[in-house]
Amino acid sequence: MSSEPILIHGGDIYTDRGLQPGEKLLDFSANLNPLGMPAAVREAAVRAISESEAYPDPLCRALRAEIAQKEGIPAEQIVCGNGAADLLYRLCWAYKPQIGLVPAPTFAEYELALKNSGAHVRLHPFSAENQFQPDDTFFTSITPETDVVFFCNPNNPTGLTVSRNYILKLAEICQKNNCLLILDECFLCFADGGAEKSAVPLLCEFDNLFVLKAFTKLYAMAGLRLGYLLCGSTEHAQKIAASGQAWSVSTPAQAAGIAALQIPDYAEQTRNYLRGNRAFLAGVLRECGADVLDSEANYLFFRWNDLTLPEKMVKHRILIRSCANYHTLDETYYRIAVRTEEENRLFAKALRQIAGRKG
Amino acid sequence: MSSEPILIHGGDIYTDRGLQPGEKLLDFSANLNPLGMPAAVREAAVRAISESEAYPDPLCRALRAEIAQKEGIPAEQIVCGNGAADLLYRLCWAYKPQIGLVPAPTFAEYELALKNSGAHVRLHPFSAENQFQPDDTFFTSITPETDVVFFCNPNNPTGLTVSRNYILKLAEICQKNNCLLILDECFLCFADGGAEKSAVPLLCEFDNLFVLKAFTKLYAMAGLRLGYLLCGSTEHAQKIAASGQAWSVSTPAQAAGIAALQIPDYAEQTRNYLRGNRAFLAGVLRECGADVLDSEANYLFFRWNDLTLPEKMVKHRILIRSCANYHTLDETYYRIAVRTEEENRLFAKALRQIAGRKG
Repeated sequence: MSSEPILIHGGDIYTDRGLQPGEKLLDFSANLNPLGMPAAVREAAVRAISESEAYPDPLCRALRAEIAQKEGIPAEQIVCGNGAADLLYRLCWAYKPQIGLVPAPTFAEYELALKNSGAHVRLHPFSAENQFQPDDTFFTSITPETDVVFFCNPNNPTGLTVSRNYILKLAEICQKNNCLLILDECFLCFADGGAEKSAVPLLCEFDNLFVLKAFTKLYAMAGLRLGYLLCGSTEHAQKIAASGQAWSVSTPAQAAGIAALQIPDYAEQTRNYLRGNRAFLAGVLRECGADVLDSEANYLFFRWNDLTLPEKMVKHRILIRSCANYHTLDETYYRIAVRTEEENRLFAKALRQIAGRKG
Repeated sequence: MSSEPILIHGGDIYTDRGLQPGEKLLDFSANLNPLGMPAAVREAAVRAISESEAYPDPLCRALRAEIAQKEGIPAEQIVCGNGAADLLYRLCWAYKPQIGLVPAPTFAEYELALKNSGAHVRLHPFSAENQFQPDDTFFTSITPETDVVFFCNPNNPTGLTVSRNYILKLAEICQKNNCLLILDECFLCFADGGAEKSAVPLLCEFDNLFVLKAFTKLYAMAGLRLGYLLCGSTEHAQKIAASGQAWSVSTPAQAAGIAALQIPDYAEQTRNYLRGNRAFLAGVLRECGADVLDSEANYLFFRWNDLTLPEKMVKHRILIRSCANYHTLDETYYRIAVRTEEENRLFAKALRQIAGRKG
């Protein structure tokens, strides 16, 4: 349809790309766990369909109790949402910030949620020369005027993390300036040693701190929609829960989330799987001449001088994410997910052909 | 949990009410189709779980094409939401109205969505003496200051409908005052002759008109969350679609909606089923001394002087909706859904016992 809005994110497997019947697109554009949705999660969601005549529990009580146990945070400080993105909007509408600070490049929905709630957005660009690595210049952009700061660790699309010490400084400066700090850790579970970088232990010290997490990515259940926000105080959690409709999280999503939290070590299994596969893909990209950042996440960010890479990849039935619509980036920047061994090999074969290398 | 927000709607089957294991609560507090979720809808939702690793189509393209065909409205004027309630918030966020007009009593989420987006809410009470029937006094509350008017046809909790002529006048006055009119028709499919009262044919004349519909109630899929908004123009639809997160409607909900629209005559079957059952319940209520309005919907609104009716009903394992938290009502007002023949008989038995009548 000609009047449709432009799709700004990865994962659009629904647009017709002229594939033959039976041909399947390999989606490297969305950052989902290559191990897929665990069987127990799938089964719980299927069972929950027969419970879905009734309204879901608006308070997600059973699910929040499980999250509380996993995170060591009281259930009263947890809000569940229809995917993590839902919570960004709820939060912005709860506080109606005047001025929000967002790094660049980063996930686009922070800026969109801020603007939707009427905020003015200030962008703080991280320098390309320094590989977009967050540095102390960011702190100087936080002033008494700032109402909300968004920060993504690891960042999307770079996959680079910052230390807990960096986060601690950030939280202190936000507290001093009386502004809210929203830390998006949706991809931190994919990083080796990510737990040591998490801001969750800081929640008891900083009541203006929020940590955003998703089930979507780790449990590959993006179609079911489930995320949660850990809040520095019960009051914040209540305010955000009351900002938006009563029944945001579906019955299958609540059931799937509860089942997911019963699986021991899924994050660890995933990290073990990712390690070699990420290194393999980064190696192939470099071998073919790409400039690749040392991502710690389940995706890789790189620069490639041929602007027709996405179209060439689609001919190999591979979907990649152009980063042209990120602030400060252009169409020479790309992001790909780390997928399964087999899919990664197909990607490598395609890229080598495109680059004129032997496969 | 003591610090939980108060639940203001019906359908709360998740709060512990001291039932014995194996005892089931009959939920007369939520207005869902007593015929339940159609098998085809259930099967489509179950199948869709295996497609739910990927993100859902943010544009709901296949679903909107089906809705367009059913409603005779271009797909470009349709926005799907995570339940109809999601769309109320998206709409308020998109337009940030200063002043919203809401009748009383009516569904609480209009006021909550308006307040969440920063609007001032003006209530127009319908008179108890006139059985809360909407009348022409409502038109006089619409002024050039009014930005948005919400109106529910049939009204919740009364079940009373207004004619298309009333709606036409309302639309004309809103147009003259340059304000948006949101008509909630989520329960109109349950009313005999409801199609003749629908505002959908007016959408081509009034571009400031919106008609809200739900899958939740008719297809008893409240746990899956799906509703849609028909907009008077493509521009309005785009603005609302862009107001909120990209992936609001889950993959199972999209699949369930498509399957639901393939079922011929489910609304008609439902109306046929409701007719006698609604009359039976209204008769029992009147026989027991209740003051009952002539609802055309799948629920009944009545007055009962014993304020402990909900607690007494729970002893019979029946959940009813107190209307004490509706504006202008108090704890002598109640609402019950029309349920299955068997459940309605159990309700009748319980009510007669409570009223001291022979069963």
